[in-house]
Amino acid sequence: MAAPFCIAVAGLGTVGGGTVKGLIAHGEALAARAGRRIEVSLVCDKSENRTKGLGVSHITDDIADVIASDADAVAELIGGEGGPALRLVEGALATGKHVVTANKALLARHGARLAKLAEEKGVALRFEAAVAGGIPIVKALRENLLTYGISAVHGILNGTCNYILTQMETTGRSFADVLKDAQELGYAEADPTLDVGGGDTAHKLALLAALAFGVAPNLDAVATEGIERITPDDIAFAHELGYRIKLLGIAKKTPDGIDQRVQPAMVRVGTPISDVDGVFNAVVADACEAGSYFFQGRGAGECPTASAVIADIVDIARGNCGPAFGIPADRLLPLTPAPNGSARSAFYLRFQVLDMPGVLAEIAGRLADWGVSIESMLQRGRAPGEAVSIVMITHETSHEAAVKALKHISESGRVVARPCMIPMEAK
Amino acid sequence: MAAPFCIAVAGLGTVGGGTVKGLIAHGEALAARAGRRIEVSLVCDKSENRTKGLGVSHITDDIADVIASDADAVAELIGGEGGPALRLVEGALATGKHVVTANKALLARHGARLAKLAEEKGVALRFEAAVAGGIPIVKALRENLLTYGISAVHGILNGTCNYILTQMETTGRSFADVLKDAQELGYAEADPTLDVGGGDTAHKLALLAALAFGVAPNLDAVATEGIERITPDDIAFAHELGYRIKLLGIAKKTPDGIDQRVQPAMVRVGTPISDVDGVFNAVVADACEAGSYFFQGRGAGECPTASAVIADIVDIARGNCGPAFGIPADRLLPLTPAPNGSARSAFYLRFQVLDMPGVLAEIAGRLADWGVSIESMLQRGRAPGEAVSIVMITHETSHEAAVKALKHISESGRVVARPCMIPMEAK
Repeated sequence: MAAPFCIAVAGLGTVGGGTVKGLIAHGEALAARAGRRIEVSLVCDKSENRTKGLGVSHITDDIADVIASDADAVAELIGGEGGPALRLVEGALATGKHVVTANKALLARHGARLAKLAEEKGVALRFEAAVAGGIPIVKALRENLLTYGISAVHGILNGTCNYILTQMETTGRSFADVLKDAQELGYAEADPTLDVGGGDTAHKLALLAALAFGVAPNLDAVATEGIERITPDDIAFAHELGYRIKLLGIAKKTPDGIDQRVQPAMVRVGTPISDVDGVFNAVVADACEAGSYFFQGRGAGECPTASAVIADIVDIARGNCGPAFGIPADRLLPLTPAPNGSARSAFYLRFQVLDMPGVLAEIAGRLADWGVSIESMLQRGRAPGEAVSIVMITHETSHEAAVKALKHISESGRVVARPCMIPMEAK
Repeated sequence: MAAPFCIAVAGLGTVGGGTVKGLIAHGEALAARAGRRIEVSLVCDKSENRTKGLGVSHITDDIADVIASDADAVAELIGGEGGPALRLVEGALATGKHVVTANKALLARHGARLAKLAEEKGVALRFEAAVAGGIPIVKALRENLLTYGISAVHGILNGTCNYILTQMETTGRSFADVLKDAQELGYAEADPTLDVGGGDTAHKLALLAALAFGVAPNLDAVATEGIERITPDDIAFAHELGYRIKLLGIAKKTPDGIDQRVQPAMVRVGTPISDVDGVFNAVVADACEAGSYFFQGRGAGECPTASAVIADIVDIARGNCGPAFGIPADRLLPLTPAPNGSARSAFYLRFQVLDMPGVLAEIAGRLADWGVSIESMLQRGRAPGEAVSIVMITHETSHEAAVKALKHISESGRVVARPCMIPMEAK
């Protein structure tokens, strides 16, 4: 058997700790797969509590030691789009070390540049754990679904949002209430903005789009909307219409460029993605003539994520060191974003209006002005002179037309809240 | 860029023809992924009609020419568990050529031996296309879900059976009628035995089990039952109980060995696998601490299958040439089968009985004699003195106890047909 493959692990939180424990506990089985022993030669964390008790004798709290070490590879599990994570990855690659990371924010911002650096140094940059945890979607896009290209990829990429939406659906409670519980249960961070605002999903989507379409990750071109404005009413109306509301990351090739969006969407009950509940993640890849593929599994947590990190390490140890995004970094095209608002779909629209004669005619008229035609309408309850919800499902229209019509409608004195607009996906 | 990677393709049916067409049409994109041009240097088929018009200038009808050629790799797409397919794979490996195949029958029979031969010669043996077509489950088990091991894997692995069961459910028609239509539509072979009898699923299951558990494929240890005896009544009862009937391949680690079974099973509505309809395939892998993963997609057809063959070719061209089953062939353990009948589950039982007093008591008594206890019972219609169906759902029991009880019951003069017994999976 070949010489051991030495890995330094930096950042010993849930994923980093799990990675070290997994590598040690399953060392023999992993050696059989890698063709050589994998040795954790160094661990690095600011907190002494985290580095102790892992059974690794070489410990540091300084990433400079990791960069200067003679490890074959570094697992960067610190997190954050810049700072020490970036310095470590740059330093490790520059000194000819392979890098494995779970850091979507870092790669969404600096992925193309880091991939190029890795190739110049003849080392691998791997990130299976950065997208959808244990689901092997990065490898599937990079190494499996490659013949005919990918026309679109979409998924549920944030377990916190999916948990909150599932809970809202089950209990009928508000976003704020469910979020508070999720925080107490540890399913949501104290500052939940990155999750519930869609930012985390956008990071992951930018990586999926890069893999799927052979482009440099372009986070700025992801139109991002979170789940904060979804109400129990929306969820109930969706149910009535045979749909569920999921926060999706969606990337599509269009004739005018690549459309990348993170947004709550209506998914039809009966489609695989509509059944993905709680903290699970799922991804659908449309592989052109090869058909559509659906992947579901645990998108977070110690073992699912460590399992993805370790699979990357084993791959590299065995010598599978192809380009980070599947094609050489200097051939990654810049991502041309589809023009803003050009995406077309049917929409769910909900208006909070004063229940008085003529209001429906006004809304319908404004929609018609912008060429938005209505497929069906629902109204719940009656309360003359007070606020009620009117829901409309449109025929397919451009995002731009719908937005403009809604802007116009919300200027009416009889519309008492900002209208809600959710695209219908997975019809 | 490195020298071109030359591939000889033998067997130009749907998959072989699609592979050649795909390699040529997408040559440039594939070269970017492989790091070198992939060239179809030779095609081989008995039929001149198939070799013509593909744009490949070197043609033969003799596999000896393929073996003697200077191709880097051979794609064996002839099919069949022995004969020319086996001679070609053995000959190609022996002369130091990588082999890619979609041939599950061949590998289920000879996989361990051929993997060993490949390793001795320092070449790869790849078979992504042999299981579940375009779904990248072979690579996922071999290269992704490897840290914590796999406790069980199950799936819908035969599109013909799934199409027939879906049609029976939709139309209420009999197995024989739906099969006849499927044959006319080209969804079932003129001789459908290998599909509807479960043999094809057994081939694929033996390969999944080998990948999942690090064992040599053992086809003889797969207990195989087909869908021929499923009636519209069973499907209707399943519906009433909140289940659907799917032909599953199931491999599980048990304390006493590995249990491999192909059989119709009740899957609860709402589980991902219950929604897999028509010609689709799906696989669920239980990756111990890393959780459960679900994969769905096209399990057959020209492009999905060619896409899997081509992905293997690209992998090898790029130098990813690890062992066929993930670990070195000489470390693949012999598969110790779980003792026959030891598998435990709840069962759906349907009895065709004469509608007369005492018959229910007799059946319940026999079941009790074998320790099989009943959770619920359904009876449809009444026809004193004539045959009616009685359906029972048991509590969890051993397969053996259920079989013995049923044998006893079927000896009764009031039971007019062989009882039907279907395990409840995915509860």
